[in-house]
Amino acid sequence: MSSDLINPRTSHEEIETGLKLQPKFDRDGLIPCITADADSGEVLMFAFMNEEALRLTIRTGKATYYSRSRRKLWLKGEESGNRLTVMEVRVDCDQDVVLLLVNAEGGAACHNGFRSCFYRAANSDGTLEHVGGERLFNPEEVYGKK
Amino acid sequence: MSSDLINPRTSHEEIETGLKLQPKFDRDGLIPCITADADSGEVLMFAFMNEEALRLTIRTGKATYYSRSRRKLWLKGEESGNRLTVMEVRVDCDQDVVLLLVNAEGGAACHNGFRSCFYRAANSDGTLEHVGGERLFNPEEVYGKK
Repeated sequence: MSSDLINPRTSHEEIETGLKLQPKFDRDGLIPCITADADSGEVLMFAFMNEEALRLTIRTGKATYYSRSRRKLWLKGEESGNRLTVMEVRVDCDQDVVLLLVNAEGGAACHNGFRSCFYRAANSDGTLEHVGGERLFNPEEVYGKK
Repeated sequence: MSSDLINPRTSHEEIETGLKLQPKFDRDGLIPCITADADSGEVLMFAFMNEEALRLTIRTGKATYYSRSRRKLWLKGEESGNRLTVMEVRVDCDQDVVLLLVNAEGGAACHNGFRSCFYRAANSDGTLEHVGGERLFNPEEVYGKK
């Protein structure tokens, strides 16, 4: 009996239609991870996971990513307190992307204090407009002045 | 006057809080792109864009990606007819991810015939369960038998 929840990649058909978790990590050992609100469906953030981050997320139910800039595991909310409780972990058809459906404690997933990192929409002339509502916290108070 | 909607990267602050589109493409010239349903918020698919795909998507309002396997632009739905009409293009805080909010003609964004590519959820033992509803089309009829 294998004690590991991450199974090796097999055939294209098994990966796309089968019922075994067979994630594909890229040449850097990472898999893209979309995080969305479990209730509203709203996309909150995007980050990467390595194999350990994916294992930890599934086992603990706390969203854990891999920080490429800091080169280490990143338990979301460790510093800010804005933890993400994972309600569901999904994979896409070819199992090379993960989707987390979460409840966001504190309401803000973005380090800039907004609910979602996607707080700006692009116009056709290359300008952006703010569509992300009010700040839910002041980043300087939470992370210190930069 | 610049006629280009894609502006060069400037300072961290300008990128995170400014109102100019300054997307970051990775070492392969690509930017991750999440596509979600404009009405329900549901995440439908994940793909990559190059600069031309992003420009075309903004200018035409039709979701256009870059296919890494075929190494060319990919107008979504060209083959299957399941086009994605773009209602809004968003960027994340550091402008290295794009989010498209779309209306999906035909209802199915996944090449396997499901509404979303994320039709399976992972259990804690490494098994998956189907959570993606019924198939909206038969892939063999649309793309031919593999």
